[in-house]
Amino acid sequence: MLFFTQCFGAVLDLIHLRFQHYKAKRVFSAAGQLVCVVNPTHSLKYAPTRCAAAQVSTEQGILPPCHHHEAVHDPQLVPCTCPLFSCQWEGHLEVVVSHLRQTHRINILQGAEIVFLATDMHLPAPTDWIIMHSCLGHQFLLVLRKQEKYEGHPQFFATMMLIGTPTQADNFTYRLELNRNQRRLKWEATPRSILECVDSVISDGDCLVLNTSLAQLFSDNGSLAIGIAITTSKAHSSEAEM
Amino acid sequence: MLFFTQCFGAVLDLIHLRFQHYKAKRVFSAAGQLVCVVNPTHSLKYAPTRCAAAQVSTEQGILPPCHHHEAVHDPQLVPCTCPLFSCQWEGHLEVVVSHLRQTHRINILQGAEIVFLATDMHLPAPTDWIIMHSCLGHQFLLVLRKQEKYEGHPQFFATMMLIGTPTQADNFTYRLELNRNQRRLKWEATPRSILECVDSVISDGDCLVLNTSLAQLFSDNGSLAIGIAITTSKAHSSEAEM
Repeated sequence: MLFFTQCFGAVLDLIHLRFQHYKAKRVFSAAGQLVCVVNPTHSLKYAPTRCAAAQVSTEQGILPPCHHHEAVHDPQLVPCTCPLFSCQWEGHLEVVVSHLRQTHRINILQGAEIVFLATDMHLPAPTDWIIMHSCLGHQFLLVLRKQEKYEGHPQFFATMMLIGTPTQADNFTYRLELNRNQRRLKWEATPRSILECVDSVISDGDCLVLNTSLAQLFSDNGSLAIGIAITTSKAHSSEAEM
Repeated sequence: MLFFTQCFGAVLDLIHLRFQHYKAKRVFSAAGQLVCVVNPTHSLKYAPTRCAAAQVSTEQGILPPCHHHEAVHDPQLVPCTCPLFSCQWEGHLEVVVSHLRQTHRINILQGAEIVFLATDMHLPAPTDWIIMHSCLGHQFLLVLRKQEKYEGHPQFFATMMLIGTPTQADNFTYRLELNRNQRRLKWEATPRSILECVDSVISDGDCLVLNTSLAQLFSDNGSLAIGIAITTSKAHSSEAEM
């Protein structure tokens, strides 16, 4: 009986996902962009951030999992940078993608421009929505995080990391775009390297930041669509250009 | 002696302003845009917002200065919407511009695209930077406000209001753009009417919002340059366009 109930639940989930994907496709099909429905990963509630944990472990004389460049072990080894706190995996840059796909089941999408459709925006903070994006011969990791930087006031933070070195990251520019309800918000920046800590990028606020009311204005039925585009960074050659 | 000291101070202020204007012109001259140096207005520190005051006065049976549409007096009369708390002036829409210019000495600029250069971003919250923009046959009011929505964490809020009715405002789209340090942030929206309360637009966060660290990344020597453009609102006819 329990088996049948679970099967029925799984079928309902599939129908729900299919419906969301269809809806997203309908909205963005005009632009000919690939739409990816991204479900939230498990909550990190009550867990300290890995950077905070890194600080504690440094004080205790243990090697920090973040800020790899400050660590003294093999510089080719990187910590797993997907923001799942429980993951203690470390490995070479070349196998980070397969680790993220196999261990954390993070999807990878191909294409110059894609739409990231984050579902269930109402879930309590902290929650993450993560996707990998393969483009221009490299892989990028998009992290959308709902977090309470100020207690009782959850905000959304979105950033893009290159699964590569900081020097490689400097060659690219990523753009995140929200467009709904007669409002449009665009953020363009150089992606950060996965060797830097995603937690510190978000805590510094050096990313796209949305308060809850703005996120609601940009959402449709609890889902937030973010248009993503990656280019080689010629656009920022002149800062005077506005 | 005191007179000479004051004269010397005034001359120094003029030289400082001239230098900032020259610097801004040098940065943006390539784009051929008009640059306006905007100094902060006096601090509203420890003063309640006019909306809060409106609520108090409503409870006490006094007509509210904000949310004019809820008031019962002449609907053609609007409260002064420049965010100087002490201003109790009310007048017809047609004379709001002359009131803002004459009483509050707010500059008015002509041109389709201008650059708003807010100086002294380090000043403590609350602080306002205000300018009027004349474009497409109408006048707009740009308000940049530094405010502590969460205690100890000042943020910057920028919005544009039409000095006209909400129906007139619906015909336009304004764009605010920041571009520096390999980062670019663009906000596009329909301007709100000056008949709505600027305080509530900002407290709702339905505007361009910057945290302090991001504002510092976009600033140059304590000045923040915001590119402003106003167009008639055809761009938002299709929400699918991204």
